[in-house]
Amino acid sequence: MIDVCLLGTGGTMPLAERALTALSLRYNGSTFLVDCGEGTQIQLRRGNISMHDIDVILITHFHADHVTGLQGLLLSMAKADRLQPVKIIAPKGAKRIISALCITAPQMPFDVQIIELEQESENFVINGLSITSQLVEHSVICYAYSFALSRKGKFDPESAKKTGADVRQWKNLQMGESVRVGDKIITPDMVMGADRKGLKVTYCTDTRPTDAITELARNSDLLICEGMYADTSKSKMAKEKKHMMFHEATEIAKKSGSKRLWLTHFSPSLPDPYQYSEYAKSLFSETLVPHDLEKTTLNFED
Amino acid sequence: MIDVCLLGTGGTMPLAERALTALSLRYNGSTFLVDCGEGTQIQLRRGNISMHDIDVILITHFHADHVTGLQGLLLSMAKADRLQPVKIIAPKGAKRIISALCITAPQMPFDVQIIELEQESENFVINGLSITSQLVEHSVICYAYSFALSRKGKFDPESAKKTGADVRQWKNLQMGESVRVGDKIITPDMVMGADRKGLKVTYCTDTRPTDAITELARNSDLLICEGMYADTSKSKMAKEKKHMMFHEATEIAKKSGSKRLWLTHFSPSLPDPYQYSEYAKSLFSETLVPHDLEKTTLNFED
Repeated sequence: MIDVCLLGTGGTMPLAERALTALSLRYNGSTFLVDCGEGTQIQLRRGNISMHDIDVILITHFHADHVTGLQGLLLSMAKADRLQPVKIIAPKGAKRIISALCITAPQMPFDVQIIELEQESENFVINGLSITSQLVEHSVICYAYSFALSRKGKFDPESAKKTGADVRQWKNLQMGESVRVGDKIITPDMVMGADRKGLKVTYCTDTRPTDAITELARNSDLLICEGMYADTSKSKMAKEKKHMMFHEATEIAKKSGSKRLWLTHFSPSLPDPYQYSEYAKSLFSETLVPHDLEKTTLNFED
Repeated sequence: MIDVCLLGTGGTMPLAERALTALSLRYNGSTFLVDCGEGTQIQLRRGNISMHDIDVILITHFHADHVTGLQGLLLSMAKADRLQPVKIIAPKGAKRIISALCITAPQMPFDVQIIELEQESENFVINGLSITSQLVEHSVICYAYSFALSRKGKFDPESAKKTGADVRQWKNLQMGESVRVGDKIITPDMVMGADRKGLKVTYCTDTRPTDAITELARNSDLLICEGMYADTSKSKMAKEKKHMMFHEATEIAKKSGSKRLWLTHFSPSLPDPYQYSEYAKSLFSETLVPHDLEKTTLNFED
């Protein structure tokens, strides 16, 4: 299962009652954080998410509202007795920019391993979660990310018995290891059903809609997507500033076959995004206009 | 009058329900901000203090909890259509450090004039307020600041009549200008009483107690002073980390003849500083253990 917490829902600047957009994903004891604006560490505290367990920080792009909380967060992780290395995945230039942002931070008690994205799309498997980055279309280099968890097929005891494998060897086969029975090699595919549906979360903010985003989001269980403005009178501004409208986000959700959509990164000029909830649902029924700290747990089917 | 708002009361790191220590002073249409940690701009919004009017930002020292909100604040000031220059008064090295912290900020639409403190104590008069910096004793270079407003003596109409000055010249004399009556020069001191008591606020955080702090705080109407720890079992830690205990702050308030004391910069290890309110008052009766956004207005006497 994957625990999802949308730490904030604001864009551009933090408001008195709306924190900046950032995402926490928890899987298998690891926390993956996407973006870290001013106040993200406060939202982690409010959401009761331990800073100690953050193994990976992904940055979409280097605008202040997505990155200036990094120094404070790393210091708080140090105070939470973190000693294991932390990976930061971020656009090219990250080493220089993060080192500047952290100018007043002393040496951390853990390694900070910065991975700079260079390709249009890259894939990483970290602590069992498969992460894909996708270049999007903003005023600066910016990436969307998807997080996918695959799920093996069901183990079939009848097939296992037929192979002659000993019951003590079943676990190896379930773990994906081949075993030897006499002079025969028994491979996992001989006893496991076809791969089952896994879990997928896609996170996309600060961009115009693109086909590549739809592909990245393909069949997501949850798509978290920027909806900077709701009213279509703001469409021109969204285009100019390279942001997305509510209706553009719902369109991506539909085209990608995503199950659910959470809108986020609301403009400060949108004081009450919730008045557009029904409008958003009329475009794509499984849309939520979430509040800060919206949580959900994604579980495998059946 | 001076409007005071203590934006936060926390030290080291922002907590879910306690913002980092920073101070807003408003006088004569200008806002003076002391320190700008992560979340200070959020507290300004919560306190309904316009970011547009911040003319001076004073930084005590370059630890993250006092300065990492600077980029976000400057960007929000730009969004609030600020065009006039902003002065930043800060320890030596400020230009290099602030430029690094603001690495992802675009060019501001206003001038940022950085004044680096070099002396043990310096004085500035900005928008009518007299500011004095004082080097204190922390693990890095750190300054306390006092803000003083002088008040002229009362204008004496009887004396003014005796000088023969015309009633239309009285305003000039009240404004501190000399006037000519026939071949006589009439100077303001001939018609004004002795200077009256002004207003003074002193702000001091992240330091061990020193005699110079007591002198800086001499006769303050309000002393805002760090009390990192309350329980005397933490005295050793306060010494090692170059911070102050509650009882050390009350001692400075008493010795300096300050009228009121607000404690601040509470350690995250002090979850309920308010349980020490009576204890603090027993040491100095005019002590307050304030909450975030504590406000007061200081007015001239009578």
